[in-house]
Amino acid sequence: MSFKPLAAKLASIVGSKWVLTDPATLTCYARDASVASGHPTAAVLPGSTGEVAAVLRLAAEAGVPVTPRGAGTGLAGGAVPGNGIVLVLTRLRGLEIHKEDLICVAGAGAVTAEIHAAAETAGLFYPPDPSSASVSTLGGNVATNAGGPHGFKYGVTRDYLLGLEVVLADGTVIQTGGRTLKNATGYNLTALLCGSEGTLGVITQAVLRLVPRPEERAGVFALFAEVEAVAQAALSVIAAGISPAALEIMDRTALDCAFGDILGDPVAAALLLEIDGPRETVSRQTAEVEALCRRSGAADIRVAAGNQVEELYRLRRAVSGALVHLYPVKIGEDVAVPVSRVPELIREISGISDKTGVKIAVFGHAADGNLHPNILYNPRETDVEHVNAAIAGIFRAALSHGGTLSGEHGVGVLKKPYFKDAVGTDTVNLMRGIKKLFDPRGLLNPGKIWATDGE
Amino acid sequence: MSFKPLAAKLASIVGSKWVLTDPATLTCYARDASVASGHPTAAVLPGSTGEVAAVLRLAAEAGVPVTPRGAGTGLAGGAVPGNGIVLVLTRLRGLEIHKEDLICVAGAGAVTAEIHAAAETAGLFYPPDPSSASVSTLGGNVATNAGGPHGFKYGVTRDYLLGLEVVLADGTVIQTGGRTLKNATGYNLTALLCGSEGTLGVITQAVLRLVPRPEERAGVFALFAEVEAVAQAALSVIAAGISPAALEIMDRTALDCAFGDILGDPVAAALLLEIDGPRETVSRQTAEVEALCRRSGAADIRVAAGNQVEELYRLRRAVSGALVHLYPVKIGEDVAVPVSRVPELIREISGISDKTGVKIAVFGHAADGNLHPNILYNPRETDVEHVNAAIAGIFRAALSHGGTLSGEHGVGVLKKPYFKDAVGTDTVNLMRGIKKLFDPRGLLNPGKIWATDGE
Repeated sequence: MSFKPLAAKLASIVGSKWVLTDPATLTCYARDASVASGHPTAAVLPGSTGEVAAVLRLAAEAGVPVTPRGAGTGLAGGAVPGNGIVLVLTRLRGLEIHKEDLICVAGAGAVTAEIHAAAETAGLFYPPDPSSASVSTLGGNVATNAGGPHGFKYGVTRDYLLGLEVVLADGTVIQTGGRTLKNATGYNLTALLCGSEGTLGVITQAVLRLVPRPEERAGVFALFAEVEAVAQAALSVIAAGISPAALEIMDRTALDCAFGDILGDPVAAALLLEIDGPRETVSRQTAEVEALCRRSGAADIRVAAGNQVEELYRLRRAVSGALVHLYPVKIGEDVAVPVSRVPELIREISGISDKTGVKIAVFGHAADGNLHPNILYNPRETDVEHVNAAIAGIFRAALSHGGTLSGEHGVGVLKKPYFKDAVGTDTVNLMRGIKKLFDPRGLLNPGKIWATDGE
Repeated sequence: MSFKPLAAKLASIVGSKWVLTDPATLTCYARDASVASGHPTAAVLPGSTGEVAAVLRLAAEAGVPVTPRGAGTGLAGGAVPGNGIVLVLTRLRGLEIHKEDLICVAGAGAVTAEIHAAAETAGLFYPPDPSSASVSTLGGNVATNAGGPHGFKYGVTRDYLLGLEVVLADGTVIQTGGRTLKNATGYNLTALLCGSEGTLGVITQAVLRLVPRPEERAGVFALFAEVEAVAQAALSVIAAGISPAALEIMDRTALDCAFGDILGDPVAAALLLEIDGPRETVSRQTAEVEALCRRSGAADIRVAAGNQVEELYRLRRAVSGALVHLYPVKIGEDVAVPVSRVPELIREISGISDKTGVKIAVFGHAADGNLHPNILYNPRETDVEHVNAAIAGIFRAALSHGGTLSGEHGVGVLKKPYFKDAVGTDTVNLMRGIKKLFDPRGLLNPGKIWATDGE
């Protein structure tokens, strides 16, 4: 089928400047932040929910696949299109704070950092903080149930999601949930759609719960000579009954990327903690955390207060992007295990690296057991079989500890081969049934989450 | 069909003492804590997940409906059976705390208060606290997404649910989620099943997230001469950036039930607040809350510390049950609105009471906008049309403020007539599609949530 007549119809819905078919431009919409890539026929940027619905109706009539997309910061290929339309939601940027109701109503294209800033201006707090927050958009955050360092204490996107406006595959616009903090009226489609990676519907707007802003925050940055000492320090903080707002672990490779190789020899890993809450508590717990790190063998400890905490985070958030400077290819994984298994998992990942000869940097959210082992290699030097063995080994290790493939990135295309082993055949079949119910012709973000027959 | 051969087969699965068919005994399983009642043919009490699966396989073969049930403390008729089998899950009482992973793994029959106690013994905290916690069971808590006073600060059951073991209508046993604090691996069936009121599967086990136990708690109990002053006091606490662990409102009728009519004349309503957290903060915030209540016109304020807080809660929890002493019939509603609308909703409910001549006691969770207007009447004195007009008026008022029918009780049978108006036809159709996918023959807890054609 020639795409031209369809492009003309699309232009009549969104305006011709918002239908992009030039091959050079389309490369911008063919990838996310992972190694995956695709071949879209057109990128369409609707300006309203009504336009999204009209585009989906048209695509349904024409039988053309539609891949919804936000800022494209995903790490699992979830927004990478096959052929067909890439539906870019970044123009839906409306953002309202209703301070008196402790909610935020925002469009799919609202940037996560804008939501953070708007909540802060109102004296409130929106905790989910994916490392890509400065560019990632709300629609993608919801579609992947994005997490971030604040996950252990504050939960992830789903925990702040009260309601959605969603356009279904046939163009029907539905509302789920609402603006109330509690809702037990029927099945919770809001929670089902969150994390469904654009395969069940196109999210156009979300209602978010906000919480009172913590009075104070402090950061503790501790360097350790042993990776396992840092994991034990993390567990000791949790065992002491402290709920850190963040408890991030970074191994030496990750640190070298963040700091530019200025650290001395005995440093194997670091812990970055944020303590927030009422001011009296922050100073007491910060001192407790410092003492616990020292007792676990920390070689060097820095404490940051107020705005300095952001400086520490900037280093942490830079890690994922900076790793590509070391090796041409970086595959960022996202396994999660019960939190007591973190030290063992780290040890096993180190063994996998030794055995396969593939470099693996490890960082992530130690308090909630969600680690990001990043596989780093040069395809001209490293055999792809060794890379695949390392990835399979990491997933096997996570599952053997009662863990899962993804804590916050989603399955996308990259984890499809391992999905059935992680979830079980009967459960996969139920999920496929739900997909078929929402999208009978399979036009919404096809080819994601599970491998289709023969794949 | 005669039930006898089926009863014999059921007895061969669970043992004859666990198949109850005596009509007098069955009346115990024909009701929940609401006005709804049914006519079960047999009550079956399986002792393991395997037995649950075998019962469901048998029921599916015989085409017999199955209504899952815990302690029967629901207030919407969700566990009230039509005919067929009542599947009573109370024997599945296993309860393990994995302190090092901050999780609890418990059977559907574990009593909520046992979970609270076990978590506390481990130095941890399980926040969801339905007022029936001393008898309600985990399976029912999950099936209705039970809330309670702790909802505003800590969230509800779904927010603590990491994974489920579920038996589907055909007897297939599936696992959803797992034991990790984060999980983005495929659709979140755990969150979908939570709140599905036993219509999609039978919950046999759940994995719960626990949090560090707050160091200290205090209670503030304040009496007000005006109902609206108490609502304004509640909003002023939230506006001050305080997250109370509970912020309960009770009107005079509710107070008289709890206190036995000992209060003086100027009391129209009361506020019960719990402040918890680090010890320094609790004392400061308790003083702040006291000052805010006084500024809003509180006539009398009592502060409780430590174990005394439980005494205040005992009064609050007694309200719902005690109301039946005033009038022969009590219908407990459960509307939720955006929190700023609480004062207006209370005013409108008072107007509905005046207009219909039906007594309505109001209490509930002021901080999350979830109120329980309880309709109280004597069927020999009050025309049922006036009662129905009052109920419809309350729902209409909640919806007109952007609210919903149920914050934590579910729809059950009692709210079915109002469900479509609250949720919308397209969304109801999606939910019915999900029901059909999970339970094609409609044997699991039939007749709940939505009205079927012709009803």
